[in-house]
Amino acid sequence: MTTARSERAAAEAAQDLLTRHRAPLERAVTAIRTREYWSPYPDEAAAYGELARTAGDEAFHRLLGQEFTSDQPGRDGSVGPGPEDGGESSPYGFGLGITYAHADPDVLLPAMEAAMAGWREAGPWGRAAVCAEILERINARSFELAYAAVHTSGHNFLMAFHAGAVHAQDRGLEAVAYALSEQTRMPTEVTWSKPMPDGRVFSLAKTFTVVPRGVSLVVANRVFPTWNGYPGLFASLATGNAVLVKPHPGAVLPLALTVRIAREVLRESGFDPNLVALAPERPGERLAATLALRPEVRIVDYAGTSEFGEWLEANARQARVFTAKSAVNSLLVESTADYRGMLHNLAFSLALYSGQLCTSPQNLLVPRGGITTDEGHRTYAEVVRDIAATVTDLLTEDASAIAVLGALVGPDVLEDVEHAASGAIGPVALAPRAVAHPDHPRATLRTPVLVALDASREEDRKTFGREWFGPVGFVVAVDSAAHGAEVLGAVTRRAGALTVGVHTTSPEVEALVAEVCEHAGVMLSVNLMGDWFITQSAVYSDLHGTGLNPSGNSVYCDGAYVAERFRTVGVRRYGDAR
Amino acid sequence: MTTARSERAAAEAAQDLLTRHRAPLERAVTAIRTREYWSPYPDEAAAYGELARTAGDEAFHRLLGQEFTSDQPGRDGSVGPGPEDGGESSPYGFGLGITYAHADPDVLLPAMEAAMAGWREAGPWGRAAVCAEILERINARSFELAYAAVHTSGHNFLMAFHAGAVHAQDRGLEAVAYALSEQTRMPTEVTWSKPMPDGRVFSLAKTFTVVPRGVSLVVANRVFPTWNGYPGLFASLATGNAVLVKPHPGAVLPLALTVRIAREVLRESGFDPNLVALAPERPGERLAATLALRPEVRIVDYAGTSEFGEWLEANARQARVFTAKSAVNSLLVESTADYRGMLHNLAFSLALYSGQLCTSPQNLLVPRGGITTDEGHRTYAEVVRDIAATVTDLLTEDASAIAVLGALVGPDVLEDVEHAASGAIGPVALAPRAVAHPDHPRATLRTPVLVALDASREEDRKTFGREWFGPVGFVVAVDSAAHGAEVLGAVTRRAGALTVGVHTTSPEVEALVAEVCEHAGVMLSVNLMGDWFITQSAVYSDLHGTGLNPSGNSVYCDGAYVAERFRTVGVRRYGDAR
Repeated sequence: MTTARSERAAAEAAQDLLTRHRAPLERAVTAIRTREYWSPYPDEAAAYGELARTAGDEAFHRLLGQEFTSDQPGRDGSVGPGPEDGGESSPYGFGLGITYAHADPDVLLPAMEAAMAGWREAGPWGRAAVCAEILERINARSFELAYAAVHTSGHNFLMAFHAGAVHAQDRGLEAVAYALSEQTRMPTEVTWSKPMPDGRVFSLAKTFTVVPRGVSLVVANRVFPTWNGYPGLFASLATGNAVLVKPHPGAVLPLALTVRIAREVLRESGFDPNLVALAPERPGERLAATLALRPEVRIVDYAGTSEFGEWLEANARQARVFTAKSAVNSLLVESTADYRGMLHNLAFSLALYSGQLCTSPQNLLVPRGGITTDEGHRTYAEVVRDIAATVTDLLTEDASAIAVLGALVGPDVLEDVEHAASGAIGPVALAPRAVAHPDHPRATLRTPVLVALDASREEDRKTFGREWFGPVGFVVAVDSAAHGAEVLGAVTRRAGALTVGVHTTSPEVEALVAEVCEHAGVMLSVNLMGDWFITQSAVYSDLHGTGLNPSGNSVYCDGAYVAERFRTVGVRRYGDAR
Repeated sequence: MTTARSERAAAEAAQDLLTRHRAPLERAVTAIRTREYWSPYPDEAAAYGELARTAGDEAFHRLLGQEFTSDQPGRDGSVGPGPEDGGESSPYGFGLGITYAHADPDVLLPAMEAAMAGWREAGPWGRAAVCAEILERINARSFELAYAAVHTSGHNFLMAFHAGAVHAQDRGLEAVAYALSEQTRMPTEVTWSKPMPDGRVFSLAKTFTVVPRGVSLVVANRVFPTWNGYPGLFASLATGNAVLVKPHPGAVLPLALTVRIAREVLRESGFDPNLVALAPERPGERLAATLALRPEVRIVDYAGTSEFGEWLEANARQARVFTAKSAVNSLLVESTADYRGMLHNLAFSLALYSGQLCTSPQNLLVPRGGITTDEGHRTYAEVVRDIAATVTDLLTEDASAIAVLGALVGPDVLEDVEHAASGAIGPVALAPRAVAHPDHPRATLRTPVLVALDASREEDRKTFGREWFGPVGFVVAVDSAAHGAEVLGAVTRRAGALTVGVHTTSPEVEALVAEVCEHAGVMLSVNLMGDWFITQSAVYSDLHGTGLNPSGNSVYCDGAYVAERFRTVGVRRYGDAR
């Protein structure tokens, strides 16, 4: 009797979800078609009430030093709490001390496969409504997730609240909208009637059923585990697959919270919670590689370095592998009608999260003959100096600097900064500065180092032609706008880029760069000023990635990103066609 | 002046194509959404006029013994006319004697890459209209193409006219409709405006441009070069790619005619004809493998044996590889309300094109306890006997037999038939019969051989668990309906299947088999009678393949089949948003 009652309650809960989320889902489907601005998740902290931030901070702190409880099957040990056991350390300088359950794939994966039967029956709309509910509950805990992002990815608070929380939720809902749109392109039932030569009509009754591929593995990165992780998680879940999340060892918490919320919602709406599970790894375990080759795993979503991304593409052959890999983003500064505005826009883009975004600009290409501006001609040396001065101004006060920068996520990032600052790779145009964080004295924060390079030197081309992850920027002298466009295209084709930019007042130069970008396959931003930066990607409007250059084989979000996560099985019947 | 005039004429021609083809293209887009019956290409020969068949036959005969002229660049030799030089031989027993130009990939591929610039600019609708025109001109020559299909693939005339001509054209147009639909999901231009906290509105002007992946390679098979070749050819061409067609050495002519017509239409409408080219191969050249690994080739469409399909999937890593491979199709005979109708439907399905369709049923699974019918209970032995008798009746007269069967496409097919007929693999339930063709005394035609096997014997399971290409069928005893469903699922999962069937009056058995098919990932046909057979696939309505079992990783036609053939490059501009 209890079972019957709880089944009824679950059915009612599922129906209620559909009622509540239908309109926003339809709105999201419209947004991805029109590409206009829209979001159901406010990105102004004030919209969440006065107490939300404090409550989120407290909720985050309650997690520290504790076992992160989980009801997943197949526990075979622990990860954490200490760093030697795989526990997370905040880039702001302390250990989180959280212990996670480690899972035995031989138990967990079959449980996940078994969970898919009921989920498949829920159909595209039923699944989309559950996904929207998961995202809504995640949204309600955006501040807790933001603090989790601060202390795993090293974000400043605003970036954590945006990219670590609300904009990541947008990416998730965008994927759900694509999945919904893609799964509902065909009818579920149709009577097919063909007129025959003798005047009769031959009819068959047909049904089309969406079936998932299997277990989907999300291999997340450290810097944007939710923003880069939610597209794959929700695209796969919404198309009927079970999703196993393998977090980066340094950023488990945001995804552990996500998985916990997803399991809660699934259970409450009558589905098997094992549709979403977490697989944290022990030090040195190489768990992602093991899981990615499991026969149950039919989809892999990966964000991280090119090296492992290429390994996955080459080796996880039983699965469809979607990758987001390293990027070297370049920006050509040719001329401008707003020199001050441009300098500020560039400086902020270089400084934001200490250059640790996958969309941070690395190479500023400047003609050696200088540029035309609304303040007259500026020589190459003046442009370099002015960019450096604007970055310095932006970050002079520690208080304002910590609101823009991020904590460096690893000692290798600091090493690169120091190497660049040593003058060993080229003349230092702007030395980095260590910024002290008032609340976190052990945090490693650095303002950007800028190095002046020359595209005519082969050694320099090698230097700026590879990814320098973190606050290392190059101001690269090029012969001309045309040469700059050529360099920009060559770097994109060889090393990959997610976004490139140009500042120009010349329609010819703009057209030339646009053509180069079309051929190299990369998004172009023209003359960005004010409140929008090359680093930003507007969910539901901008495509993140093209799949055409080495920065990845997939796009957030397009039809191709979801179309292969499910298949359609048809049945045709003679005799009962109406 | 001539150039200006011809450019103007080409622009007018392109506009005219768009005017003429817009409505049918919109209708095709509707059809793939509703899945109702529709086709712009009549499949009744009478619709083409009284003289069309004779004219087609004459046009075909004019091609024999001649050089097949071509204006492709990079000719470096010849293929044919004799079989020792790679010339084609009709399965009806004579050499076609046609000589084709052999192409140097080092010349041809760069020319194809160069051809793509103008084609990209034509946009989705412009390209779709040109593709529709190509198909319309192919349609007008359906009889010539049908005779080419008869004498390369060994079809009977009706199958050649249907699957070799008009239904292949439908498959092509279906792919164009999918490509059009997929490429027009986003606006080409939009102003994105975000309200800022201070009440201002921040705007960016955005454009989205479809860009192709690169050169697309179609590796065609011998049995259905157009039906299996057109989906990839037209999906890639409509999405902006150049398409290189590598025909099977035994079936060059249908694709050579196709490529010639495509080049004519492209040239007339102002595009570079090198967007479509033919690459026939010399004996032993392994040209498909060479071409598939070329860096210019970014898409491969393949139809053929599993062995080479798997090689392509594993090795053509620079390309997105779409495969249609070997299939072992099974059908469970459990009970029926129309025993005579069922027997006739099964017999025709077994006999059609001498079992050489990729959708031909190979394994008829029959419970060893017999089946319930409208004529009372039938024992297993009676069912076997009745199926055999119905096949015999259908093919007793040579004149009617040649209208159903096809000529065997190779000595290996005949060997399999003779091996099965020898009794070496199991008791022969129906011996094959050599059929004499009145017009083609040297044609090799065989009626089906039926062998009785038992699913409880491991050796038998091995026998019917692999593909026997051609007129070899197995009547397999199973323990029960449930056992039959299990066997059907197991064979599909291990060897791959494109279509499976069931005859049953029991809703439970139907539901069980439908569930097995959903899990194994294969289309199911229930109780087919009368004018529709398990072998048939209704273009714009049925999905051919699921991509879920080993018979292939792709589907004619779904979103996934076209979505990855192009990408979208965005440009966002500050300052000129309106």
